[in-house]
Amino acid sequence: MTTTLYVCTTCRAGQELPEDAVRPGTHLLNALEAQGTPDGVEIIPVKCLSACSNGAAVALSAPGKWTYVYGRMTTEDAADILAGAAKYAASEDGFVPWRERPEQFRKQSLARIPPFQMPLEAAE
Amino acid sequence: MTTTLYVCTTCRAGQELPEDAVRPGTHLLNALEAQGTPDGVEIIPVKCLSACSNGAAVALSAPGKWTYVYGRMTTEDAADILAGAAKYAASEDGFVPWRERPEQFRKQSLARIPPFQMPLEAAE
Repeated sequence: MTTTLYVCTTCRAGQELPEDAVRPGTHLLNALEAQGTPDGVEIIPVKCLSACSNGAAVALSAPGKWTYVYGRMTTEDAADILAGAAKYAASEDGFVPWRERPEQFRKQSLARIPPFQMPLEAAE
Repeated sequence: MTTTLYVCTTCRAGQELPEDAVRPGTHLLNALEAQGTPDGVEIIPVKCLSACSNGAAVALSAPGKWTYVYGRMTTEDAADILAGAAKYAASEDGFVPWRERPEQFRKQSLARIPPFQMPLEAAE
C-alpha cells in the first residue's frame, strides 16, 4: 500500500515574503524531490495543509495507517523526513517506535489521526 | 458515510496537573457527549492525538473527505465543535466554506490532510 508524503507548498514558515517569492514550503518540496523518494513512498504537493502558524508542514498517510502531521520543517530536514517516511512505509499501522523516529519527528509533531476501521479498544 | 469526531482525552492544555487529575481533554469529551452528537457524527475518544502543545485537540474525519485537526479547544467550545461537525458531515468532501465554519474552527486549525484518492489536480 503506497504511503503518501504530503508537502505543503504554500507554507511561509513565519517569514514575511513578497507575493511572488518562492515559499519555504516549495523549497522543502524541491529538496525532498531532489533526494529521491524511498520505496513505497509518493510525494504529493498540496497547496495548503492549514498548519500555517507551524509551517513548513508535511503529512504522512496511507490507507489503514495512522496519519502523522509534522511542522516547522526546513530544507535541512529533508533527509530526516525521507528516512521517517521510509520507516512509516515499512510499518504495519504507521506507528514507528519512538526511538526509531528521526529527531525532528519526535520534536515537531503537530497531530496524528487514527486510521479508519481502527478497533475501538485501540483508540480509547 | 459516518463522520468521526476524535477527541483527545489526555490533553493537558498546557496545565500543570496531578497525575490522577481529570485532563482537560476528558472534560471536553464529557461536554461534547453531554450535548449529544449531530446526525451522522460519531464521537471516538483517543488517548493521544500528538497535538500536546496545542491541546485540547479534536479531529474530524470521514472516508473520502479531508481530515481536519483543531487545537486549543475548551469545554466552552463544545457547541461550536458539534455545529462544525454537523456541517462537515453534511459536506461532500469535508470542505465547509470559510464563513460557515464556527469561529474557533477558523482560528484554531492545526492541520488538514487530503483524502485518499484525491484527484491530483486538486492537491497541487
